[in-house]
Amino acid sequence: MTDMQGFLYPRTQSGASSLIPSPPWFYSGDLLTVEYRTDPARVKALLPAPLELAPDDPGAVAFIWADWQSCSTDRAELLDPVRSQYKEAFVVVRCSFQGVTYSRCVFIWVDKDFAIGRGLHQGYPKKLGSMWQTRPHPFAQAAPQIAAGGMFGATLSASDRRLAEAVVTLKEPAATNGFVNGHPMAHHRVLPDIAGTGDAYSELIATGAKAAEGGQTWTGDAELRLFDAPTEELADLTVDEMIGGYYRQVGVQWDGGTTLAKITS
Amino acid sequence: MTDMQGFLYPRTQSGASSLIPSPPWFYSGDLLTVEYRTDPARVKALLPAPLELAPDDPGAVAFIWADWQSCSTDRAELLDPVRSQYKEAFVVVRCSFQGVTYSRCVFIWVDKDFAIGRGLHQGYPKKLGSMWQTRPHPFAQAAPQIAAGGMFGATLSASDRRLAEAVVTLKEPAATNGFVNGHPMAHHRVLPDIAGTGDAYSELIATGAKAAEGGQTWTGDAELRLFDAPTEELADLTVDEMIGGYYRQVGVQWDGGTTLAKITS
Amino acid sequence: MTDMQGFLYPRTQSGASSLIPSPPWFYSGDLLTVEYRTDPARVKALLPAPLELAPDDPGAVAFIWADWQSCSTDRAELLDPVRSQYKEAFVVVRCSFQGVTYSRCVFIWVDKDFAIGRGLHQGYPKKLGSMWQTRPHPFAQAAPQIAAGGMFGATLSASDRRLAEAVVTLKEPAATNGFVNGHPMAHHRVLPDIAGTGDAYSELIATGAKAAEGGQTWTGDAELRLFDAPTEELADLTVDEMIGGYYRQVGVQWDGGTTLAKITS
Amino acid sequence: MTDMQGFLYPRTQSGASSLIPSPPWFYSGDLLTVEYRTDPARVKALLPAPLELAPDDPGAVAFIWADWQSCSTDRAELLDPVRSQYKEAFVVVRCSFQGVTYSRCVFIWVDKDFAIGRGLHQGYPKKLGSMWQTRPHPFAQAAPQIAAGGMFGATLSASDRRLAEAVVTLKEPAATNGFVNGHPMAHHRVLPDIAGTGDAYSELIATGAKAAEGGQTWTGDAELRLFDAPTEELADLTVDEMIGGYYRQVGVQWDGGTTLAKITS
Repeated sequence: MTDMQGFLYPRTQSGASSLIPSPPWFYSGDLLTVEYRTDPARVKALLPAPLELAPDDPGAVAFIWADWQSCSTDRAELLDPVRSQYKEAFVVVRCSFQGVTYSRCVFIWVDKDFAIGRGLHQGYPKKLGSMWQTRPHPFAQAAPQIAAGGMFGATLSASDRRLAEAVVTLKEPAATNGFVNGHPMAHHRVLPDIAGTGDAYSELIATGAKAAEGGQTWTGDAELRLFDAPTEELADLTVDEMIGGYYRQVGVQWDGGTTLAKITS
Repeated sequence: MTDMQGFLYPRTQSGASSLIPSPPWFYSGDLLTVEYRTDPARVKALLPAPLELAPDDPGAVAFIWADWQSCSTDRAELLDPVRSQYKEAFVVVRCSFQGVTYSRCVFIWVDKDFAIGRGLHQGYPKKLGSMWQTRPHPFAQAAPQIAAGGMFGATLSASDRRLAEAVVTLKEPAATNGFVNGHPMAHHRVLPDIAGTGDAYSELIATGAKAAEGGQTWTGDAELRLFDAPTEELADLTVDEMIGGYYRQVGVQWDGGTTLAKITS
Repeated sequence: MTDMQGFLYPRTQSGASSLIPSPPWFYSGDLLTVEYRTDPARVKALLPAPLELAPDDPGAVAFIWADWQSCSTDRAELLDPVRSQYKEAFVVVRCSFQGVTYSRCVFIWVDKDFAIGRGLHQGYPKKLGSMWQTRPHPFAQAAPQIAAGGMFGATLSASDRRLAEAVVTLKEPAATNGFVNGHPMAHHRVLPDIAGTGDAYSELIATGAKAAEGGQTWTGDAELRLFDAPTEELADLTVDEMIGGYYRQVGVQWDGGTTLAKITS
Repeated sequence: MTDMQGFLYPRTQSGASSLIPSPPWFYSGDLLTVEYRTDPARVKALLPAPLELAPDDPGAVAFIWADWQSCSTDRAELLDPVRSQYKEAFVVVRCSFQGVTYSRCVFIWVDKDFAIGRGLHQGYPKKLGSMWQTRPHPFAQAAPQIAAGGMFGATLSASDRRLAEAVVTLKEPAATNGFVNGHPMAHHRVLPDIAGTGDAYSELIATGAKAAEGGQTWTGDAELRLFDAPTEELADLTVDEMIGGYYRQVGVQWDGGTTLAKITS
């Protein structure tokens, strides 16, 4: 298709129709993170060989809500914000591959198609969901502050079922925004064979932010409730021990990754 | 129904089911305003007698987008933000009643049912729409700042048609957030007769914020495009002369109003 | 507002902007009904005085899902079906007023604003929800038939929580489509006082279809599960004894009602 | 990932979380088709080499709306219809590859994530949209019949802009449901390289229904309007000559395809 333009699909002579433009992609947004420990066997069950559990704190999980504004290089999306704003909720664990520790997104929901398209490229297993998270605002009439006592709620639903809800109550500044989502991501990208036998393509990639900056992280107490659903296994990652909650505003640039392994079936 | 509780409907013994709780209601949010002049005859056509055109600048119109977080007294909505956050776009003109100048919302769209419910009480003629407005963010990777050069886009659609889109480019601080939406609101509240002849109830009320505070308003250049639709008359308020664009973050409390006139049909 | 046109709001000189056109309104759609018995005290708790429990079978409840196409007299909505199609789920009980038995909708959710607008007029206490019900189709690859063995599911959610789900398995033709929703409706229409003390307007009306026709009703086994939510009391109407499930395709015309009592607060 | 189950993603030990289950997939639904001719150069511009224009009637285009209920082998989706029902609108042209004529979907919009997931596998370039099409119903109060005089409207919007609208007025039974979408589909499946240079995977596949049945097709007059949008090129396929409109109810089974060519970049 070298005579056609467009990063993903549909491809045309101009490339204007593509669901997503070429990277780099830019993001400004707010992250609400809840970290907790589950049974490491529940994490291991989500790691395809040869990925192994991370050597330390292998049962640690990060449940993250993000309220994003995003754009590509020409920033045109910012003036037509239906194409720029989206929300997501995702679950990150850690794993080990060839002696290196990676973060890995095991479940993720977003509310726009361009975010699904980016996830196809980045190896995030995105479904559609409905996510909400409390916003801070300079005027407190109906908003918390990013400060001691600030209370932030977050919810996730998909297919008309509530899947998760969290409340984080900020107490103090923190040195980090948690540790589970702090490594490069190790993700699979797969395309099943059209004839129905295994995968036509399967690859393990590493990726992460090319550049990121952020404001002061605040941490505090967190509650997290997970609910069953017939097409989800999120609730299997039971909340056995709470680590903590975090709130941080960030700006991020993403621009590709590298192949760790091409998998032949 | 004195044996039942609940501010609007459905009413029950506890009142917990009511679409909206009792006022006061609290709001934190961002306002993007475009003010312009249309033919005063177009404004007059939207004013039922005995409302008259405002004596000065009678063709002035404010088109306002708002990105809200809201709650009632117990603030429970803030931790379940699907019940707290909503967006709206609305058109305000001015009018005169018994020698006093009022603001009047002539068209408005929101994206949540609780906002429709509040509008029933306040006399805002709310329909459902899909509204988007660019958000400022501390990190500029994919966001403007509320500062010189900050560009904010806003769009409105309803019934799968785009009805309006605006771009405001900030230039400098301003003393006011425009003047068209600056008076108490004069709104009608009507309920058609169930037997089909006229209104069972019709009332002209005055209402406005009980208390409000806001950050520094910024003003700048504005563009506004209005589009036709078979069930809307928004585009009749043609943009004949641009006044300007404004951006302001505010916190507001609303707690009722007063009856100006009960209308017997 | 005699110089303005438009059935509900916003009113203009042409009337074209009104959220809903004047009655009569026309409906073609499919009804999935589950009837059951709850504790009559739970029904009584939803009846404001002077409404009383129906004399026979006072704890009977009908939970109804409807998948509608609707229009007004000029049928313009049918060619722009975003303005014509909607879904709803609603709960009906019976009550007695001045010795006459009425049906009464105590809770209802719809997914379009024009349906909310009609409900304001008709006294249905409508909120927004997300409703889904299995559709019959001539080709059975992914659809049941309206026939013995046909299985129909239905779900209701609001504010990102699932509130109810039902399954009806058809067994045989039935003489009626249940009995709970078979009387004229006795509904309240209320508008709270803008100054905050009681209702500015409160009325008890009677209404029902002006004309209706329907296909063969089928009946069968039914399951119904109700779930708690912080702003709903639906689950208080516990399913103590199942009566049965029904499926029927209908065509309906609605054209107003009559006032039973004007209530002065 | 041979130790993990799940057809697409996310993969787990049970496979229950996969966005889509394994084929075969089953569909019952209604198709509204408008066929017309555009400049063949506009079609050619959408065909990557070595695909060529179809030898006869190369400028023919089919614009199709479909209102589907769908399921996998265990039919569980049918009782939780939020996971079963979806709508789509898509544009099909024809092309020639190695002397064989294929149909090819060049643009498509759907309203559920599971439909996007199926499209990834089948090579349909799916985006999210909002589609509506008039439904036939046995009772004509607010519905057309599939019969002479039946009028059906259909609309497509995405990113809050209306992209297309059609009206088909049925006149008589027809032997076929049009001809443009009547061949096996020739689709590309692509995955861009994570390092940013070309495609990691690109394949040309052939696919089509494994089995299909349908009711009597009706044909009649058609209108079709296409609208510009900044991220779409749909309107470039100008309606130069109308061929006709069609309505048909169908049941379909899909179960994979074959590789026509693996493309190395």
